[in-house]
Amino acid sequence: MSDVSVSLGANKYGKAENRVVRIYRDTPRHEIVDLNVTSQLRGAALADCYLSGDNSFVVATDTQKNTAFAFAKLYGIPSPEEYLLRLAEHFVTAFDWIDGGLWQAQQYEWERILVDGRAHDHSFVRTGRATRLAAVQVVDGQTHVMGGIADLVVLKSTGSEFAGFPRDQYTTLAETDDRILATSVTGRWRFLPEAVEAGIDYNGLYAEVSAVLLSTFATVHSLALQQTLFAMGKAVIQARPEITEVRFAMPNRHHFLYDLAPFGLENPNEVFLAADRPYGLIEGTVTRDGAEPAPDAWLDIPASG
Amino acid sequence: MSDVSVSLGANKYGKAENRVVRIYRDTPRHEIVDLNVTSQLRGAALADCYLSGDNSFVVATDTQKNTAFAFAKLYGIPSPEEYLLRLAEHFVTAFDWIDGGLWQAQQYEWERILVDGRAHDHSFVRTGRATRLAAVQVVDGQTHVMGGIADLVVLKSTGSEFAGFPRDQYTTLAETDDRILATSVTGRWRFLPEAVEAGIDYNGLYAEVSAVLLSTFATVHSLALQQTLFAMGKAVIQARPEITEVRFAMPNRHHFLYDLAPFGLENPNEVFLAADRPYGLIEGTVTRDGAEPAPDAWLDIPASG
Amino acid sequence: MSDVSVSLGANKYGKAENRVVRIYRDTPRHEIVDLNVTSQLRGAALADCYLSGDNSFVVATDTQKNTAFAFAKLYGIPSPEEYLLRLAEHFVTAFDWIDGGLWQAQQYEWERILVDGRAHDHSFVRTGRATRLAAVQVVDGQTHVMGGIADLVVLKSTGSEFAGFPRDQYTTLAETDDRILATSVTGRWRFLPEAVEAGIDYNGLYAEVSAVLLSTFATVHSLALQQTLFAMGKAVIQARPEITEVRFAMPNRHHFLYDLAPFGLENPNEVFLAADRPYGLIEGTVTRDGAEPAPDAWLDIPASG
Amino acid sequence: MSDVSVSLGANKYGKAENRVVRIYRDTPRHEIVDLNVTSQLRGAALADCYLSGDNSFVVATDTQKNTAFAFAKLYGIPSPEEYLLRLAEHFVTAFDWIDGGLWQAQQYEWERILVDGRAHDHSFVRTGRATRLAAVQVVDGQTHVMGGIADLVVLKSTGSEFAGFPRDQYTTLAETDDRILATSVTGRWRFLPEAVEAGIDYNGLYAEVSAVLLSTFATVHSLALQQTLFAMGKAVIQARPEITEVRFAMPNRHHFLYDLAPFGLENPNEVFLAADRPYGLIEGTVTRDGAEPAPDAWLDIPASG
Repeated sequence: MSDVSVSLGANKYGKAENRVVRIYRDTPRHEIVDLNVTSQLRGAALADCYLSGDNSFVVATDTQKNTAFAFAKLYGIPSPEEYLLRLAEHFVTAFDWIDGGLWQAQQYEWERILVDGRAHDHSFVRTGRATRLAAVQVVDGQTHVMGGIADLVVLKSTGSEFAGFPRDQYTTLAETDDRILATSVTGRWRFLPEAVEAGIDYNGLYAEVSAVLLSTFATVHSLALQQTLFAMGKAVIQARPEITEVRFAMPNRHHFLYDLAPFGLENPNEVFLAADRPYGLIEGTVTRDGAEPAPDAWLDIPASG
Repeated sequence: MSDVSVSLGANKYGKAENRVVRIYRDTPRHEIVDLNVTSQLRGAALADCYLSGDNSFVVATDTQKNTAFAFAKLYGIPSPEEYLLRLAEHFVTAFDWIDGGLWQAQQYEWERILVDGRAHDHSFVRTGRATRLAAVQVVDGQTHVMGGIADLVVLKSTGSEFAGFPRDQYTTLAETDDRILATSVTGRWRFLPEAVEAGIDYNGLYAEVSAVLLSTFATVHSLALQQTLFAMGKAVIQARPEITEVRFAMPNRHHFLYDLAPFGLENPNEVFLAADRPYGLIEGTVTRDGAEPAPDAWLDIPASG
Repeated sequence: MSDVSVSLGANKYGKAENRVVRIYRDTPRHEIVDLNVTSQLRGAALADCYLSGDNSFVVATDTQKNTAFAFAKLYGIPSPEEYLLRLAEHFVTAFDWIDGGLWQAQQYEWERILVDGRAHDHSFVRTGRATRLAAVQVVDGQTHVMGGIADLVVLKSTGSEFAGFPRDQYTTLAETDDRILATSVTGRWRFLPEAVEAGIDYNGLYAEVSAVLLSTFATVHSLALQQTLFAMGKAVIQARPEITEVRFAMPNRHHFLYDLAPFGLENPNEVFLAADRPYGLIEGTVTRDGAEPAPDAWLDIPASG
Repeated sequence: MSDVSVSLGANKYGKAENRVVRIYRDTPRHEIVDLNVTSQLRGAALADCYLSGDNSFVVATDTQKNTAFAFAKLYGIPSPEEYLLRLAEHFVTAFDWIDGGLWQAQQYEWERILVDGRAHDHSFVRTGRATRLAAVQVVDGQTHVMGGIADLVVLKSTGSEFAGFPRDQYTTLAETDDRILATSVTGRWRFLPEAVEAGIDYNGLYAEVSAVLLSTFATVHSLALQQTLFAMGKAVIQARPEITEVRFAMPNRHHFLYDLAPFGLENPNEVFLAADRPYGLIEGTVTRDGAEPAPDAWLDIPASG
C-alpha cells in the first residue's frame, strides 16, 4: 500500500483558551475586561511542518499566546472585536507567509458590587447571564468580523403553541396551544465590511442587540421555536444597520408537564419536569436582503458558543 | 475467607436531581420557581434491603420523585427551605420506619425580561449569578435547616495582600502587597431551631445575606482569603439573628501577573492570566458564640455546591 | 426601520442527543450497542415555519426521536454508520419535502466483565477509552458517510522535539529536543461513495483505524504535533482503501517540566505539571490524491467530537 | 448588632488539583504515574489568619504545591497512598503547629500502546476506565489511609429485579422482574492501621479490589441496587484482610424501556432510553465486624469521586 499518495487539506493551528484578564487602573475606579482568547493561523507555507516537521515558518503557539497578552497591555481591549482585529492584523502583516487565520474570544461580564447602594470602585461580581462572543476571520485577503452571544437562557411560561405538524406512523406528540418555551440562545452576527471600516461602537451594539433578542423572545407569540428564532434575527437586523446576518443555534429545552392525575391532582400548566436530553435543536440564519453573502466568514466557527 | 463477617454501616438512598419547575399563574403576571431537588431517606428497617434484597420497607426512589412533584402542586414552593421541610415531614411521618433523611435543593434564579422598560408578565431570563442552596436534615428526631449560596464569583482588582507567611526550602512564592483576589463562594448557613420554629422569611433573608456577603468581600482589605472568609461569615451572623453558623468553601482563583518584561513592557497589575488548576482551597466555619453546636446537621452535606 | 427586509438562510432542525441503548438478547450471551443520536432535517418547504409559524411540513422533533428508537428495534444497529444511513434514507424518502439533513452518533463502548477469567454473558463495564463517531450527511441528493473517533488521549514521554521555529519580539519559548507530547485525538474520516455503495465492514474498519492511529502516534519521532497528525492521517488512508480523507483536531496538552532547581533538585524530564488552559490546537486534513473532494459532506460537523 | 460575638469553627486550607505527572525513565522502558493531588492543612495556630490576617503560621498553598512536585522527584510515587503518606508526614513534622490535614489524589491510568502486537516503551493511551482514588487523613494524632475507585460504569442487561416495595398514594412505579441495572460506582475503602503499619502492596490491592467489584456486580442476581452494593462491599472485605470498611455511592442510572407499542412493535427489553436526571442515588457502608470504627477518617471526604 505504500504507493498510495496523500496531500494536506484544510488546516490551521494556534493557541486556544488564553484567559486574558485586563484591569484598567488609571483612576481608583478600576475597569475589568475578562476574555478567553483563541488564535489560529493559516498559510500555505505551513504545509512543510505537516509534511516533514520543518518548523521554519511555524509561529509558535506560545508566541501567539505571548502576543495576545502583550497586546492587552499595548493596545488595551476596548472591545473584543477591536482587540481581535489588532491581533489578526498583526499576524498577517508581521509574518508575510501567514495568509490568514481565525481569532475568537468569549467575554465574561462582571458588574460592580453594591456597598450601601453605591457601586464599588474595584470589587466585582460575575453576572453569569450569557457570554459575549467575538470572532475575526481573515481568508483570501478579506477580513470578517462577527459578534455574538451564548448561553442566554430564556423561558416563557405561556404564549407558546405547537400544533399543525404532520403525523406519520411514528408520531405520538399531542398538539398543544399552551406550553413552556425555553431555550439557551447562541447567536452570532456578522458585521458589514463597510461598517467595520467606518468603525462601530461594538460594546453599545452588544448591549442593544442583547436587549432586542430578549424583548423579541418575550413579545412574539410563538407557534414554533423556528418562528421565534426568525423574529429575533429580523429584529436584530432591523435594529442595527451594521449587521448583515445573524446565525442562531437554539436548543429547545423541554419542560414536560408532570402527570399528577394518579395522585388525584390537576396540573393546569403549573408543575413541570425540566428535561436534559434529548432536546430539540433548532438552527437558522437570518440575512439582510441585498447584502453580499460571505460563506468564508463562517469557516470553522462553531454553531454553539 | 467465607467466615469473615460484615455489617451495614451508614447508608441512605433516594432520588437525586429532580428538576422541579413550578409556575404560578393565578394572575397574568406569572411567577417561576426552578429547583433541582434531591430526596434521600434513612431508617434501620432499610437494612434488610441491603442484606437480602427485601424491599418491604423501601419507599421507592420513584415514589420520592412523584412526591416531590406532587408537593410542588399541593403546597407550592414558597421557599426552597419550606418546601424541603414539607417533604421531610411527610416522609418521616407517613412511613413510621423512616427515621430521617436528607433533602437538598439548588434554586436557579430568573428575572423578568424588560420590554420597553417594563418587566414582562410571563417571559424570563436566567440570571446566572450564583445558585441558591437549601437543605433539611432529619436525624435522631431533630430537624435541621440550612440555607446557602454557590458559585458566587467575585473579584477585587486591588485591596488584597499576601505576605508574612513562613518560608522553608520549598517556598518560592514572593510576598505581595497588591494582587487580584478572586473566588467562587460557596456558603451554607444553619438556622437556629427556635427561629425555624417561629418562622423565617427565607427569601428575604437570602437576599440580605447575599448582599452582605458581597459588600463584605468588597470592603474588607484582605491580608489573606482566610481573613476575608471569616469577615464574611461574621457579617452574616451579625446581620441575621436566625443564623447560628456559616460554612464556606472558597477556591482561590489565581490570577497571575503576566510577565511582559521580555517584550519591553511594564505590567503594573494590568494584565493577568486567569489560571484553572491548581487553585488554593480555603474552607472555614464561623459560629455564633453561645449557640448549640449541631454536627449532625451537616452529615453528608457537600462542602461545595 | 420597518422597511428593512430579511430572508431565511441556512437552517436545520431536529432532536439532539437521543440516548439509544440496544440490547441483543436472542441468546443468553447478550450484546449491547450504546449510542447518542442526533437527527436534523433540512428542506426548502420548512421555511414557512420560520417565517410564519406554519408547521404543516415540520416533522416534529419528537417524531424524529420516536423513529430513532423504533428503528433500533426494526433494523437493529449493526454499526452506527448503517443505522444512521437507514434513518437518513427514511426521512428523505418518507417525506418528499425533506431535501436532506445531518444524522450524527456517538458510540460508547462496553466490554464484558471478567468473572474467573471468563467474559460474562450479560454484565458489562464501560471502557471509557475514546468515543466512536459516525455521521451521515444528505445534501443536494448526495449521501456522505463519515466515521470517527473522539477523546483518544495519548502521550509519549520522549521521542518528541520542537525546534527551528521563527523568533520575533514576542517569542520566549525555548527549543527542546525532548518533551512530553500529549493530545486528545478527534479524527473523522470520510468514506468513498463507491465503498459505501459496495458495503463496508464499519466495525472492523473502526477497530483497525483505531489501532493504526495509536501505533502511528507511538512510532513517529515527532518534530511537531502537525507532523504527527499528518502521519496519522496518511497511515489511515494507506491502511483502508474505503477512506478518502481524514480530518483531525488535536489539542496539544502541555506538560510543563516543573522547576525543581530552587529546591536543589535536578529534573531530567521526570516531573511535569499537566496544564489545562491555554493549550495548543492543531487541526488538519489529509486527503487521498485523486479522490473527489466533497466539502458539502462536512457541513455543520463540529471539529471536536 | 455589633456586640454579637463569633468564633472560628472547623477549617482547613491548601492547594487543590495539582496535576502531578511523574515519568520513570531509568531504562528505555518508561513508566508513567499521573495524579491530581490536593493538600490541605489544619492547625489551631492557623486561626489568627482567619481572625486577623496574620500569616505567620500559614504554610502557603504555593509551598504545598511545590512540595507535592518536589516529593514526586525525591521519593517517587510508588503508589498514590504511599506518596500521600509522605506528604502528610512531612507537613505534620516539618511544621510543629500543623496538627493534621487531608491529602487526596485521583490517579488516571495509562496503558502502553500496542505496535505490531508489542507494548511500546514510551507511548501510552489513557484507559479511561474508572479513576483510582487515595486519601490520607491526619487528625488527633491518628493517620488514616483510604483507597478507592470512581466512575467505574457498569451495566447488566438482565439479572436485575425490583419488586415488593410499599405502595402509597404517590406510588406509580410498576414492579419488574427484569430490568437493566446500571451504575457508576464510587467506592472508598479504609485500611486497617496495623496493615498500613506493616506495609501494603497498594497497587496490587487496587487491581484485585477492582476485579472483585466487577465480578461481584456481574454475578449477583440483583433484587435491589442496595443489595448489590452490600454484596460488593462484603466481597471486597472478604478478599483483602487489610480493608476494614468500604463506602459506596452508586447512582442508579435509569434505562427506561422505550414504548414502541404505538408503532406496532414489541419491545421485550431490547430498546432503552438512557436517562440523565433524575437518578436514584444509593449510598452505603460495609464494615468488617470487630474492627475499630474511625469516623474521623472520613472527615470532609466527598461521597463521590
